[in-house]
Amino acid sequence: MASVTDPDLYYRAHIFCCTNQRPEGHKRGCCASKGAEHLRNYMKKRAKEMGLPDIRVNNAGCLDRCELGPCIVVYPEGVWYAPRNESDVDEILTVHLQNGGRVERLVLPARDAA
Amino acid sequence: MASVTDPDLYYRAHIFCCTNQRPEGHKRGCCASKGAEHLRNYMKKRAKEMGLPDIRVNNAGCLDRCELGPCIVVYPEGVWYAPRNESDVDEILTVHLQNGGRVERLVLPARDAA
Repeated sequence: MASVTDPDLYYRAHIFCCTNQRPEGHKRGCCASKGAEHLRNYMKKRAKEMGLPDIRVNNAGCLDRCELGPCIVVYPEGVWYAPRNESDVDEILTVHLQNGGRVERLVLPARDAA
Repeated sequence: MASVTDPDLYYRAHIFCCTNQRPEGHKRGCCASKGAEHLRNYMKKRAKEMGLPDIRVNNAGCLDRCELGPCIVVYPEGVWYAPRNESDVDEILTVHLQNGGRVERLVLPARDAA
Protein backbone atom coordinates (compact mmCIF):
# COMPACT_ATOMS: atom_id res chain seq x y z
CA MET A 1 0.00 0.00 0.00
CA ALA A 2 3.10 2.25 -0.07
CA SER A 3 2.81 5.08 -2.55
CA VAL A 4 5.65 6.30 -4.75
CA THR A 5 5.17 9.79 -3.35
CA ASP A 6 5.58 8.79 0.30
CA PRO A 7 8.47 10.40 2.18
CA ASP A 8 11.32 8.14 3.27
CA LEU A 9 10.83 6.39 6.59
CA TYR A 10 11.43 8.58 9.61
CA TYR A 11 12.64 5.60 11.65
CA ARG A 12 14.35 2.67 9.98
CA ALA A 13 12.70 0.47 12.57
CA HIS A 14 9.88 1.50 14.85
CA ILE A 15 9.12 -0.91 17.64
CA PHE A 16 5.91 -0.78 19.64
CA CYS A 17 5.71 -2.61 22.94
CA CYS A 18 2.29 -3.31 24.38
CA THR A 19 2.27 -2.39 28.04
CA ASN A 20 -1.48 -2.52 28.52
CA GLN A 21 -2.81 -3.43 31.94
CA ARG A 22 -6.13 -5.17 32.49
CA PRO A 23 -7.78 -5.78 35.84
CA GLU A 24 -6.46 -8.75 37.80
CA GLY A 25 -8.21 -11.96 36.76
CA HIS A 26 -9.34 -10.77 33.31
CA LYS A 27 -9.79 -13.82 31.12
CA ARG A 28 -7.60 -12.48 28.31
CA GLY A 29 -4.74 -11.56 30.61
CA CYS A 30 -2.55 -8.62 29.64
CA CYS A 31 0.99 -7.83 28.63
CA ALA A 32 1.60 -5.73 31.75
CA SER A 33 1.06 -8.74 34.00
CA LYS A 34 3.74 -10.61 32.06
CA GLY A 35 6.55 -8.16 32.58
CA ALA A 36 5.97 -6.00 29.50
CA GLU A 37 6.98 -2.74 31.09
CA HIS A 38 10.27 -4.06 32.37
CA LEU A 39 11.08 -5.62 28.99
CA ARG A 40 10.16 -2.41 27.18
CA ASN A 41 12.45 -0.36 29.41
CA TYR A 42 15.22 -2.90 28.97
CA MET A 43 14.81 -2.88 25.18
CA LYS A 44 14.96 0.89 25.06
CA LYS A 45 18.10 0.98 27.20
CA ARG A 46 19.87 -1.79 25.28
CA ALA A 47 19.01 -0.31 21.87
CA LYS A 48 20.62 2.93 23.02
CA GLU A 49 23.68 1.15 24.42
CA MET A 50 24.11 -0.78 21.16
CA GLY A 51 24.00 2.47 19.22
CA LEU A 52 21.46 1.19 16.73
CA PRO A 53 20.73 4.07 14.37
CA ASP A 54 17.26 5.28 13.40
CA ILE A 55 15.51 2.94 15.78
CA ARG A 56 12.73 3.91 18.16
CA VAL A 57 11.20 1.84 20.91
CA ASN A 58 7.77 3.06 22.05
CA ASN A 59 5.10 2.12 24.50
CA ALA A 60 1.79 1.25 22.92
CA GLY A 61 -1.70 0.71 24.21
CA CYS A 62 -3.38 -2.68 23.88
CA LEU A 63 -2.29 -4.37 20.64
CA ASP A 64 -5.12 -6.89 21.15
CA ARG A 65 -3.08 -10.07 21.18
CA CYS A 66 -3.24 -10.25 24.95
CA GLU A 67 -3.15 -14.02 25.27
CA LEU A 68 0.21 -14.18 23.50
CA GLY A 69 1.92 -11.36 25.34
CA PRO A 70 4.08 -9.65 26.13
CA CYS A 71 3.78 -8.58 22.49
CA ILE A 72 5.85 -6.23 20.41
CA VAL A 73 5.61 -5.35 16.73
CA VAL A 74 8.41 -4.07 14.51
CA TYR A 75 7.47 -1.76 11.64
CA PRO A 76 7.63 -1.26 8.72
CA GLU A 77 8.13 -5.03 8.51
CA GLY A 78 5.07 -5.75 10.62
CA VAL A 79 6.83 -8.60 12.38
CA TRP A 80 5.44 -9.51 15.81
CA TYR A 81 7.42 -11.03 18.64
CA ALA A 82 6.65 -12.31 22.12
CA PRO A 83 9.87 -11.84 24.11
CA ARG A 84 9.71 -13.52 27.53
CA ASN A 85 12.87 -12.20 29.11
CA GLU A 86 15.90 -9.95 28.65
CA SER A 87 17.74 -12.61 26.71
CA ASP A 88 14.91 -12.75 24.16
CA VAL A 89 15.04 -8.96 23.83
CA ASP A 90 18.80 -9.09 23.27
CA GLU A 91 18.33 -11.68 20.56
CA ILE A 92 15.67 -9.60 18.77
CA LEU A 93 17.88 -6.51 18.93
CA THR A 94 20.93 -8.32 17.60
CA VAL A 95 19.39 -10.65 15.03
CA HIS A 96 16.57 -8.49 13.69
CA LEU A 97 17.35 -4.86 14.38
CA GLN A 98 21.10 -4.99 13.99
CA ASN A 99 21.51 -7.73 11.38
CA GLY A 100 18.19 -7.71 9.52
CA GLY A 101 17.33 -11.33 10.30
CA ARG A 102 14.45 -12.85 12.23
CA VAL A 103 14.21 -14.65 15.56
CA GLU A 104 11.89 -17.28 14.21
CA ARG A 105 11.20 -19.02 17.51
CA LEU A 106 9.71 -15.81 18.92
CA VAL A 107 7.78 -14.61 15.86
CA LEU A 108 4.00 -14.60 16.25
CA PRO A 109 1.96 -16.07 13.38
CA ALA A 110 -0.18 -13.91 11.11
CA ARG A 111 -3.34 -15.38 12.58
CA ASP A 112 -4.08 -16.24 16.18
CA ALA A 113 -5.22 -19.76 17.00
CA ALA A 114 -9.01 -20.03 17.13
CA MET B 1 13.85 -4.94 5.11
CA ALA B 2 10.83 -7.29 4.79
CA SER B 3 11.84 -10.93 4.56
CA VAL B 4 10.16 -13.47 2.28
CA THR B 5 9.49 -15.67 5.29
CA ASP B 6 7.60 -13.01 7.28
CA PRO B 7 3.99 -13.82 8.16
CA ASP B 8 1.29 -11.72 6.50
CA LEU B 9 0.45 -8.47 8.26
CA TYR B 10 -1.76 -8.87 11.32
CA TYR B 11 -3.33 -5.45 10.72
CA ARG B 12 -3.68 -4.05 7.24
CA ALA B 13 -3.12 -0.62 8.73
CA HIS B 14 -1.80 0.03 12.21
CA ILE B 15 -2.09 3.61 13.35
CA PHE B 16 -0.17 4.96 16.33
CA CYS B 17 -1.25 8.22 17.90
CA CYS B 18 1.19 10.01 20.15
CA THR B 19 -0.57 11.09 23.31
CA ASN B 20 2.52 11.96 25.29
CA GLN B 21 2.25 14.67 27.91
CA ARG B 22 5.15 16.87 28.93
CA PRO B 23 5.17 19.32 31.81
CA GLU B 24 3.52 22.66 31.12
CA GLY B 25 5.96 25.09 29.50
CA HIS B 26 8.37 22.47 28.12
CA LYS B 27 10.17 23.99 25.18
CA ARG B 28 9.35 21.13 22.82
CA GLY B 29 5.67 21.12 23.67
CA CYS B 30 3.77 17.87 23.48
CA CYS B 31 1.01 16.19 21.53
CA ALA B 32 -1.23 15.92 24.59
CA SER B 33 -1.37 19.70 24.94
CA LYS B 34 -2.60 19.93 21.35
CA GLY B 35 -5.64 17.73 21.71
CA ALA B 36 -4.01 14.41 20.84
CA GLU B 37 -6.05 12.31 23.21
CA HIS B 38 -9.37 13.64 21.97
CA LEU B 39 -8.34 13.13 18.35
CA ARG B 40 -7.14 9.61 19.07
CA ASN B 41 -10.43 8.70 20.71
CA TYR B 42 -12.32 10.26 17.83
CA MET B 43 -10.25 8.36 15.27
CA LYS B 44 -10.84 5.07 17.04
CA LYS B 45 -14.58 5.68 17.21
CA ARG B 46 -14.89 6.80 13.59
CA ALA B 47 -12.79 3.92 12.26
CA LYS B 48 -15.16 1.54 14.01
CA GLU B 49 -18.25 3.34 12.73
CA MET B 50 -16.90 3.26 9.18
CA GLY B 51 -16.36 -0.47 9.47
CA LEU B 52 -12.81 -0.30 8.17
CA PRO B 53 -11.49 -3.87 8.25
CA ASP B 54 -8.15 -4.92 9.73
CA ILE B 55 -7.36 -1.47 11.07
CA ARG B 56 -6.14 -0.72 14.56
CA VAL B 57 -5.76 2.66 16.21
CA ASN B 58 -3.43 2.67 19.21
CA ASN B 59 -2.07 5.09 21.73
CA ALA B 60 1.68 5.46 21.65
CA GLY B 61 4.25 7.05 23.88
CA CYS B 62 6.33 9.98 22.68
CA LEU B 63 7.07 9.62 18.96
CA ASP B 64 9.67 12.40 19.33
CA ARG B 65 8.29 14.85 16.79
CA CYS B 66 6.73 16.94 19.52
CA GLU B 67 7.01 20.29 17.77
CA LEU B 68 4.88 19.05 14.88
CA GLY B 69 2.15 17.37 16.91
CA PRO B 70 -0.33 16.04 17.37
CA CYS B 71 1.45 13.30 15.40
CA ILE B 72 0.24 9.97 14.15
CA VAL B 73 2.01 7.38 12.01
CA VAL B 74 0.39 4.79 9.78
CA TYR B 75 2.21 1.48 9.29
CA PRO B 76 3.33 -0.47 7.35
CA GLU B 77 3.49 2.56 5.04
CA GLY B 78 5.33 4.66 7.61
CA VAL B 79 3.36 7.75 6.63
CA TRP B 80 3.14 10.46 9.30
CA TYR B 81 0.31 12.93 9.68
CA ALA B 82 -0.42 15.89 11.92
CA PRO B 83 -4.23 16.08 12.15
CA ARG B 84 -5.41 19.26 13.85
CA ASN B 85 -9.09 18.54 14.25
CA GLU B 86 -11.83 15.99 13.69
CA SER B 87 -12.22 17.00 10.08
CA ASP B 88 -8.55 16.20 9.44
CA VAL B 89 -9.02 12.80 11.07
CA ASP B 90 -12.07 12.12 8.90
CA GLU B 91 -10.08 12.99 5.81
CA ILE B 92 -7.21 10.66 6.76
CA LEU B 93 -9.63 7.82 7.45
CA THR B 94 -11.48 8.27 4.18
CA VAL B 95 -8.64 9.14 1.82
CA HIS B 96 -5.83 7.00 3.22
CA LEU B 97 -7.31 4.16 5.22
CA GLN B 98 -10.43 3.57 3.16
CA ASN B 99 -9.23 4.49 -0.33
CA GLY B 100 -5.46 4.00 -0.16
CA GLY B 101 -4.59 7.59 -1.05
CA ARG B 102 -2.72 10.24 0.87
CA VAL B 103 -3.78 13.51 2.50
CA GLU B 104 -0.76 15.37 1.22
CA ARG B 105 -1.43 18.62 3.04
CA LEU B 106 -1.18 16.83 6.40
CA VAL B 107 1.75 14.50 5.65
CA LEU B 108 4.89 15.18 7.66
CA PRO B 109 8.19 15.25 5.77
CA ALA B 110 10.82 12.55 6.17
CA ARG B 111 13.12 14.99 7.95
CA ASP B 112 12.25 17.64 10.45
CA ALA B 113 13.32 21.20 9.79
CA ALA B 114 16.61 22.04 11.49
